[in-house]
Amino acid sequence: MAFKLPIRGEPSHTLTAQVAGHIKQHIATRQLAVGMRLPSIRGLAEAMAVSRSTVIEAYDRLAAEGLIRARQGSGFYVCPMPQPLSLADIGPRLDREVDPFWVAHQALAGGGGLLKPGCGWLPPEWLAQDSLRRALRSIARSDATELADYASPLGLGNLRQWIARRLADFSLEASPDQILLTDSGTQALDLVCRFLIEAGDTVLVDDPCYYNFHALLRAHRAKVVSVPYTPNGPDIASFERVLREHAPRLYLTNSVLHNPTGSSLAPAVAHQVLRLAEQHALTIVEDDVFADFERDHATRLAAFDGLKHVVHISSFSKMLSASVRCGYIAARPDWIAALSDLKIATTFGGSRMSALLVYRMLNDGSYRRHCETLRNRLARAMGPVAANLRRLGMKPWIMPRAGMFLWCELPRGMNATEIARAALARDIVLAPGNVFSMSGSAANFLRFNVAQSQDRRLYSVLADLLVKPGRRKTQQESMAE
Amino acid sequence: MAFKLPIRGEPSHTLTAQVAGHIKQHIATRQLAVGMRLPSIRGLAEAMAVSRSTVIEAYDRLAAEGLIRARQGSGFYVCPMPQPLSLADIGPRLDREVDPFWVAHQALAGGGGLLKPGCGWLPPEWLAQDSLRRALRSIARSDATELADYASPLGLGNLRQWIARRLADFSLEASPDQILLTDSGTQALDLVCRFLIEAGDTVLVDDPCYYNFHALLRAHRAKVVSVPYTPNGPDIASFERVLREHAPRLYLTNSVLHNPTGSSLAPAVAHQVLRLAEQHALTIVEDDVFADFERDHATRLAAFDGLKHVVHISSFSKMLSASVRCGYIAARPDWIAALSDLKIATTFGGSRMSALLVYRMLNDGSYRRHCETLRNRLARAMGPVAANLRRLGMKPWIMPRAGMFLWCELPRGMNATEIARAALARDIVLAPGNVFSMSGSAANFLRFNVAQSQDRRLYSVLADLLVKPGRRKTQQESMAE
Repeated sequence: MAFKLPIRGEPSHTLTAQVAGHIKQHIATRQLAVGMRLPSIRGLAEAMAVSRSTVIEAYDRLAAEGLIRARQGSGFYVCPMPQPLSLADIGPRLDREVDPFWVAHQALAGGGGLLKPGCGWLPPEWLAQDSLRRALRSIARSDATELADYASPLGLGNLRQWIARRLADFSLEASPDQILLTDSGTQALDLVCRFLIEAGDTVLVDDPCYYNFHALLRAHRAKVVSVPYTPNGPDIASFERVLREHAPRLYLTNSVLHNPTGSSLAPAVAHQVLRLAEQHALTIVEDDVFADFERDHATRLAAFDGLKHVVHISSFSKMLSASVRCGYIAARPDWIAALSDLKIATTFGGSRMSALLVYRMLNDGSYRRHCETLRNRLARAMGPVAANLRRLGMKPWIMPRAGMFLWCELPRGMNATEIARAALARDIVLAPGNVFSMSGSAANFLRFNVAQSQDRRLYSVLADLLVKPGRRKTQQESMAE
Repeated sequence: MAFKLPIRGEPSHTLTAQVAGHIKQHIATRQLAVGMRLPSIRGLAEAMAVSRSTVIEAYDRLAAEGLIRARQGSGFYVCPMPQPLSLADIGPRLDREVDPFWVAHQALAGGGGLLKPGCGWLPPEWLAQDSLRRALRSIARSDATELADYASPLGLGNLRQWIARRLADFSLEASPDQILLTDSGTQALDLVCRFLIEAGDTVLVDDPCYYNFHALLRAHRAKVVSVPYTPNGPDIASFERVLREHAPRLYLTNSVLHNPTGSSLAPAVAHQVLRLAEQHALTIVEDDVFADFERDHATRLAAFDGLKHVVHISSFSKMLSASVRCGYIAARPDWIAALSDLKIATTFGGSRMSALLVYRMLNDGSYRRHCETLRNRLARAMGPVAANLRRLGMKPWIMPRAGMFLWCELPRGMNATEIARAALARDIVLAPGNVFSMSGSAANFLRFNVAQSQDRRLYSVLADLLVKPGRRKTQQESMAE
């Protein structure tokens, strides 16, 4: 091979790039074909009049890119092309059964160009980008222990102190030692379920409730029963009957900005729920991931109960970043000890880096204003989205006082699952009601995320799909026109 | 309150710090006592001749530190002192039962000043600090989606392609779609167990084996059986007998640099293990977290078997950073699909940020040399540590060809659990043999991590503790001298 000599005096990283560039060119033109051995480090260094370390760096860079590969003691060789990624993980799947995993899979897998009014989180641009950039730069200056060591069993002490203060804001008294950090709100729920229930145990949920409760409980092989949810919380008569008839071990719920309805628990209902829980030895898991979307200090079961019958969980994914995963559990001290053992057994501890990043974001002085901005932005979005949906014949079940969700009833005769399938074919992920409903009673509901419902295309596709079946032209008719 | 005027012309973050500093001083001197309302934002801005936004920033910073708290619509108030962290999470616990959680808890909880020759990871200073700092700075420039959105169901495609190439290096052919990212090697194991076994199922492990296999299987309520481990792998006669008598569903093992012994599976034994697994419908989970400590391309069951009966798992915690958690599973495509559902149900997906950080570290051209450096450093540490231990009467079971572990037999009559307890009282975390042994057959073994056994204090404490009980002076005798 003949190589151009590099220009002297350039910084070495440019020389490295030049050496790497030459090799790439030779691979592209097949002068170096798959399986061929690259020039020796010494040989190439002499031929290009660069240092050996420059060649080593260039080869390592190409190896990291997967173009070449080192073989122990015998130099570097040209690799086969990297294997492509299949579409399974990088696009929605139209053929998937509409089960509790459906929305999560379609929304998580969906690539660019997909609208996601059905997903349960904010667009990344709304989240704490600048704060996270600052946190990353700041942690780049941390010491080796923070950068490379495991987390302590309960997780970052500073963050647990921050959480204890935050819980005190809504009258939930928990010491930092009653708080266990987890890698997400979902992992927090999962650990609590692993600790408190066995396969075959009965668990109570709201109807409707967050679809992933169904997925999680399926993973635990729990028997699931449900009670209708009203705009003030669970229907108390049904709640009492279910406790008497099915004696569930656990009740999973959102007290504040309930998913999918956006309603919040009224104090009187909370009191009844706790009274019945005490009578029936029911443990309540209160999932509070939407806490900071609420302007006022709403009713929390854990605050009323003092963590005796209630386990409180939350996370930072909805407010700060879903890329950095961090959640927590607040519970009785003896339960926290057992949950901490379980966390070590099943994950060997949480991500120290994620806890550090979250703590820096909470602690850089911008968090309160960030929350304020998000709340205002969501409040401004809620009305126009509701109006657009009403214009299409959809009716919000309630107008939530905060948060991102609108739980909407479709015009009579419409099936949300069919509409969600048809929308997916047009690159829109909707959240059909029955993924939230244990009893299958929400076939004519869709959950809309107002932050993800800003694109006009959504409404024109919905207008197409909501034409009453009788009046909808068949494909043949349309083509005949 | 009287305030000094700030010096004009200073950048605003200094003004913010000044305002915050003044308030802090007033809190420290009780001029602002717990529960008192802070000056209004407008009032303080005028008094200090700064802008209102400077005061807001200062108040937010103090609120983030937990010194003050905002009350909706009524200003800021001085908080009670933050609740202290208990020792439970920030120091070793002497009274803890020596069970499979013992080493993990003591080593994870232990603060500064603790020596950890019993822990299973490298000192943070040995890991990829500089590479991680570069990765953090580089990701601080990423787009909003990378910073704030959830990961895709299988996890970062680039990283899965990198892993597929790495597996191909040791002849394990897996496409990127057969690889599922997880938040740790332990989580990978846990997901596989959740998928493949139920409570009451029988699982086979090596005797000795990694202590957290016992903790994990206890969490799964599995019945555990074990086979003696030899320097070439499991004892095949026992292996066959256990399969016949107990019909285990699963076998968890390390093929390369087995934990705690440091030995590796011989090809002939691997062949027998696979033959028997096929005959008895046994699935093997191969935990390969020490892969890159190995110089040569050792025997992997997954490579022999082509992922038919074997699930291969690994992570980056041992080589790059344990603060950034990222592991993976390579398995049959249909199993990967089911495991991916299970991951979403139980964690709602992995940490995109961790995967990005790991990928940048693997991809910045320094990884091969980092591994080389670690291997050389460990190889240089192994001999002197073994010599020190031999001098104290301890005998390495084998001299491993790589890695960090020395599995050492104590002098006759010594009990490793007692020695580990006594060492903990002197701020040294040891790993007593029976936490690794299902059958309790390793009461006279300790596992040493050569990288964590560099401090002379270890050997002087061990010399004290290894004095034969008969010859050890009682405390009274020592004090009488």
